[in-house]
Parts: sequence; C-alpha cells; structure tokens
Amino acid sequence: MRNIKMTIEYDGGRYLGWQRLGDSDKTIQGKIENILSEMTGSKVEIIGSGRTDAGAHARGQVANFKTESKLELAAMQEFLNRYLPQDIVVKELEEVPERFHARYHAAGKKYSYYVWNNVVPSAFERKYSYHYPGNLDVDRMNEACRKLVGTHDFIGFSSLKKSKKSTVRTVNEITISREGNLLHFEFIGEGFLYNMIRIMMGTLLEIGAGTMEPEYIDAIFESGIRSDAGMTVPSQGLFLDEVYYD
Amino acid sequence: MRNIKMTIEYDGGRYLGWQRLGDSDKTIQGKIENILSEMTGSKVEIIGSGRTDAGAHARGQVANFKTESKLELAAMQEFLNRYLPQDIVVKELEEVPERFHARYHAAGKKYSYYVWNNVVPSAFERKYSYHYPGNLDVDRMNEACRKLVGTHDFIGFSSLKKSKKSTVRTVNEITISREGNLLHFEFIGEGFLYNMIRIMMGTLLEIGAGTMEPEYIDAIFESGIRSDAGMTVPSQGLFLDEVYYD
Repeated sequence: MRNIKMTIEYDGGRYLGWQRLGDSDKTIQGKIENILSEMTGSKVEIIGSGRTDAGAHARGQVANFKTESKLELAAMQEFLNRYLPQDIVVKELEEVPERFHARYHAAGKKYSYYVWNNVVPSAFERKYSYHYPGNLDVDRMNEACRKLVGTHDFIGFSSLKKSKKSTVRTVNEITISREGNLLHFEFIGEGFLYNMIRIMMGTLLEIGAGTMEPEYIDAIFESGIRSDAGMTVPSQGLFLDEVYYD
Repeated sequence: MRNIKMTIEYDGGRYLGWQRLGDSDKTIQGKIENILSEMTGSKVEIIGSGRTDAGAHARGQVANFKTESKLELAAMQEFLNRYLPQDIVVKELEEVPERFHARYHAAGKKYSYYVWNNVVPSAFERKYSYHYPGNLDVDRMNEACRKLVGTHDFIGFSSLKKSKKSTVRTVNEITISREGNLLHFEFIGEGFLYNMIRIMMGTLLEIGAGTMEPEYIDAIFESGIRSDAGMTVPSQGLFLDEVYYD
C-alpha cells in the first residue's frame, strides 16, 4: 500500500473546519476525501495533523492517505487541484514510509494570527484578520508572551471541559511583528489545546490594551479557570502555517 | 456648499464595477451614494475619478461630493464605514475647494495588475490575481514595456469602438517585480482607455510566453487593430492604487 503525505493550503472562510462531519460537504477533509475517492475509484480516508476551526485558514496543513492507486504524484496533484474548489489547493504530494501518520508523528506546529490595528478597517484584510481599532502596547504583550512560553498546564486557555488527558503543553516561541497596520502574532509549539491560540490571543489583546496586567498570566495558569483569561478571538485571523515532523 | 474629497478602498469581487447603474445596488458608487444620502437626509451624487471594471479592486479610488451637511469629517467617515458593506472602506475624507472635480482634475493614475505565476494555484491569491502557470520571460516583457511607455495612439489596446475623441494617451512608467510566485505589474500614466491595462497585460503575457515578439508592439500601434493585441485578462487581478492631483 502506498502512503502519501499531502501539504494543503486553504481559505477556510466558507467551511465548517477541517474535520469531516458525517456526509457534510462543508469541511476541508470532506472535500478532499470526495475527490480522492473519485480519483482512485475506492473510498479514501485522510488523516490530518489535527483539526482547524470553522473559518480558520491553512498555508501548510498536512495529511496522509493510503492507496493502491498507481497514479504518479504529479498526475494526482493535477487531478486534485483541477477538481477541488479554488479555495483549497494541494501544494505538495510526497511518498512516505507506510508507518507515517500525520497526527501521531506531528512534532510541532506553527500558527499565525493577524490583527488589523487601525480605526479605519481594511476592505482586503477583513477576512484574514481581526479588526482591533484601539491602541495596543507591544512591549506589554511581549512581556506576557515570555510568561506564556514554556511548559505549563494550559487548561485555563482552552475551551475544553475538565479532561482526563493531560492539558500540559509546551509553547516554544511567540513573536509579534508589525507590517503597517497589520500585527502578526506567530506561535510555535509542540501542540495546542482546543481554542488555545484564540484564547491566548484574546488575553494578549487585553494586556496590550491595558485592561489586564502581564503578571495576570501567572494567575490564569494557577487557577486554570477559563473565564479568568481573555475572550476567544474570531477564527478568520488564524492560519495553520506549518506542521513539523522529525 | 462644502466639497468633500474621499479616498476609497474596495474589494470589487462582488460588484458590477464603480459606476452606478440605475437603481442597482451592486455598484460601489451606488452603495456609497445610498449611505451618504441617508446620512445627510438629501440625495447625494458622488463624482469618481473614473470607472473601474466589474470585479476590479481599488486601494485608492478618489471621489468628491457636495453637501450642506454640517457633520464633522471624522463623524462622516465613522458613519460611512459603519454602514457600508465591509468590502468598501472610506480611508480618508478631506475638505477641498468648491471647484475641485475628482474626474476633471485627475492628473494621472497608478494601477497594479497581479499574476500568480506557478503551476500550483494559490487558495488566497486567486481572487486578487490571474493564474498563469507557464514560464514568463521578464526581460522580454520589460523590452515590450519600454515600447509601451510614451505618448501613443492606444486604440489597438482598447475595447473602444472607433471614437471621435482622441485615443492618444501617455504612459509614464511600467514596472515589473516578483515576490515569490506573484508577479506585480505597475502602470503609471496620465490616463488610460477602456480596458487598456487589461489588454496591455494580455499582450505582455504573450510576449513573456514567447508567442509574440516585443517588436510587435510597434505593429499594434501602427495598425490600431484590437485583434492584433493580446487578450483582455480577467478583472480580478486589477487594482486602482492611486489617483494623482496637481
């Protein structure tokens, strides 16, 4: 059986997220599986590196699937990009060892979140960023980022109910950069809990705005109470940039 | 009477173009006039620097309108951006002398056209560029640009039928730059005929692909026959960047 790794880019604006929901045609996984099944003539299931939220985007989502098909990779990619909706693109296909598993073997991920930080909104960035018109103090946010980086129990920064599984995660790096009115937040970590980036972002914005102190990050780690952290910012500013494998 | 100059940004993807068409709600001008009329309580007409095509975008369209309203500019801008659809944004309002006319006084314009030049399409750029997968020789296109620049009769590069008005125009500058897979063509000129940039672009792509020689530009100027030039590329790659006033 061949095992094929795919790197996928999508504008998630029209979709209910990555993960297939029954027979729904409104998920990225569903769209790709349908085309692959047509292409190979038998039902194909793909394994994603993880879910992405409804409305969130990806520049480098990774998935794998097994197939008996003898089609060359270039022909597969051409077929997929011809029949997929134009807002989903297969950027790369690669033949990998049969044991490769896109979720189990993912060693880390890089995400971006964009904030359009100006009173006047943007006609072009509105679908790819969160519009925050107020002043944001980047130094204060950087101070909070230094507290978020490291190995912590992130349950307070998650929409998970109490979980039997560990909610300890390691965040390796958070960087903030500005290009004109667009603030770019980049998160690199071994793994993230459900809604964790969007809640860290909502918390960073409160700290940047001055309504929360950077030190309060420690208190959220200590209490582990979701409502102590900031709001869950909207999904349209979130991009899965890259999935790392060893 | 106050005369107010507005600078407008729009994602034209959902619209029939700038110019109002009867009572249609599907034009940029129509959308803005409707909000301005509601705001001031009397019918407002705005004068644009010129039309933009259905599906084309603008980062810096300019228009002006006259009003008896006493509202402050900041309050007007806030009202407009609150009630306009999110893909139309008023970036700036400025009080100008009563004689100012956005069309008559426009001294020049800058446009951009984007080509996504890779076999693999882009999920994000597809609405803001033309996908051209083949090889393009930028040196050959630059050679053709040097022939296009200057004062010529551009009737062969226009969708106009024979016109009583002059079809002589001056193009001041055309530059081509590449950022990754995105080719950026920038056109600066005193004025452009109907479809002139999209037809120059179609011609440049034929020259870049090698199916037309750069010298053929001279032949199109000489014949003035539309069908001698390249195709009219799609409008979604076209942006009106800036309108110049003395």
